[in-house]
Amino acid sequence: MISESPSESPILDLQWIAVDWGTSNLRAWAIGARGEIAGFRMSASGMAKLHSREFERTLLELVNSWLPNKEPVSVVACGMVGAKQGWLDAGYRKVPCEPIKRNSLIRAPTESSRLVVSIVPGLSQDRPADVIRGEETQIAGLLEKNISESSVVSMPGTHSKWVKLREANVQSFRTFMTGELYSLIADHSVVRNAVASSEWREEVFLEAVEECQKGQVALAAELFGLRARSLIADDSPATLRSRLSGLLVGHEIAEVRKSLGQEEIAIIGSDELTKPYRSALEHLGYRTTILDSEQVTVAGLKKVRELAD
Amino acid sequence: MISESPSESPILDLQWIAVDWGTSNLRAWAIGARGEIAGFRMSASGMAKLHSREFERTLLELVNSWLPNKEPVSVVACGMVGAKQGWLDAGYRKVPCEPIKRNSLIRAPTESSRLVVSIVPGLSQDRPADVIRGEETQIAGLLEKNISESSVVSMPGTHSKWVKLREANVQSFRTFMTGELYSLIADHSVVRNAVASSEWREEVFLEAVEECQKGQVALAAELFGLRARSLIADDSPATLRSRLSGLLVGHEIAEVRKSLGQEEIAIIGSDELTKPYRSALEHLGYRTTILDSEQVTVAGLKKVRELAD
Repeated sequence: MISESPSESPILDLQWIAVDWGTSNLRAWAIGARGEIAGFRMSASGMAKLHSREFERTLLELVNSWLPNKEPVSVVACGMVGAKQGWLDAGYRKVPCEPIKRNSLIRAPTESSRLVVSIVPGLSQDRPADVIRGEETQIAGLLEKNISESSVVSMPGTHSKWVKLREANVQSFRTFMTGELYSLIADHSVVRNAVASSEWREEVFLEAVEECQKGQVALAAELFGLRARSLIADDSPATLRSRLSGLLVGHEIAEVRKSLGQEEIAIIGSDELTKPYRSALEHLGYRTTILDSEQVTVAGLKKVRELAD
Repeated sequence: MISESPSESPILDLQWIAVDWGTSNLRAWAIGARGEIAGFRMSASGMAKLHSREFERTLLELVNSWLPNKEPVSVVACGMVGAKQGWLDAGYRKVPCEPIKRNSLIRAPTESSRLVVSIVPGLSQDRPADVIRGEETQIAGLLEKNISESSVVSMPGTHSKWVKLREANVQSFRTFMTGELYSLIADHSVVRNAVASSEWREEVFLEAVEECQKGQVALAAELFGLRARSLIADDSPATLRSRLSGLLVGHEIAEVRKSLGQEEIAIIGSDELTKPYRSALEHLGYRTTILDSEQVTVAGLKKVRELAD
């Protein structure tokens, strides 16, 4: 457990706790009386590692020392904690709709009286069938920033999301298995040796992104092509890893562009993830703004809390 | 080691040994004086499990009891045994070219004098970069059957190959990571539970194949869509597994069709692999012929042996 709280004793003006509980990690922020972040803790006890009965104990262990002795503290949580395999199934709200709706939080059962836990529902879309869980809160946070209420939002990751906003509502979205495919291919497929490098070749990346925009790149063939290039063209692992990135990011952007106008594109994510997306999008002539994912998550959870009052 | 030889003593009229040595398995056929198969043995000692020095011992262990006491026996081998990571790098011949060329076999070094081992080189293509190793021998075998010398050949598998023949020459080919992607996604990705079934829904498979023919199916999005369909449309694992197959096979066929005319399509493979390809291709209006891969491999190795004399 990674503990980054400045305080090991109760936080005197603790008002509530904001929680982002994803598949791999659990993050908690103690929010003080003036809305300030009074403490932060993180653990690797993500949803995927827990049975439904273990969530309460796991959260209590993480935030226990923050809590006052008697009064219960309110917790607002978003992310996979609200999935079928999570603490409890918080369901989905159908798009088009606002990212967060007043009074839509789902109360999670607790044995202890020290926490009152509410979970944010996800969003679903019928055609094409798609789901979001956690990103709806980030979208709400993004709308608190100085961003157009009709932007397109790119959220790179294991499952990259693209969200279309219209007048502060989520109009539609699409998820791509980009990050997961990247890991499966780079670490577990026949091309893993061909792409074994941590170096980056920007020009190779952009070239692959461009190739994908010409339409109909046969991804399954281009992926095997990485191995062939390594064998017969003697392309270096750095070149081929950058090409792998470019093919996957380019494939994603090519699909999204079909319905993209001149909107500003807001990219939410870590530095490592947003960089190639920004680079690809600007190369193709789009305007982008980068937002830090932790910042928009906390802003979103604050908005959720506001609408729950 | 799986031993299926009818004989545990030397094969009296043994003329030579045909070997198909792939990434996962090693197959050896004892060929008698009249060209008949006088013995067959198979082991799981594929190329991927061996260091280059272990190939000779591994082969000797498998075929030892077939061998006469004195005279060396000739072995002709195709497949990944001739890769960089194999017994020795047998190189590639560039297409367009005949699948097998007279006197192009590469002699592998042996310590024992009981075996004289020759390996068939693979084929390579510059644009798009691609390689074949083992399938060239199957193509040579196919041409011994009653198949048009200008067919298109579909070879489903971990790395599915499509080969265009013109007047008995390999004109061009393309490899798709279809089988490997299928395993990675069905066994190791976030959709593995959604597709956990061994049942088959032919109509779902064909519908996905058709979808891909309309052009520009965003594979990375459709793959995540399997999970979304399981969550919000309650699609069964049998349905979603059949859809996964249909998306991957359909993606492959959509690319190949761009340069496909009215040629007959010869499909080489096991029953399990050729069935969905035949079904998809016939659904799209193509004529197909199925050939058993072991039969064409042995026929091809015989042709190689003939041209080496």
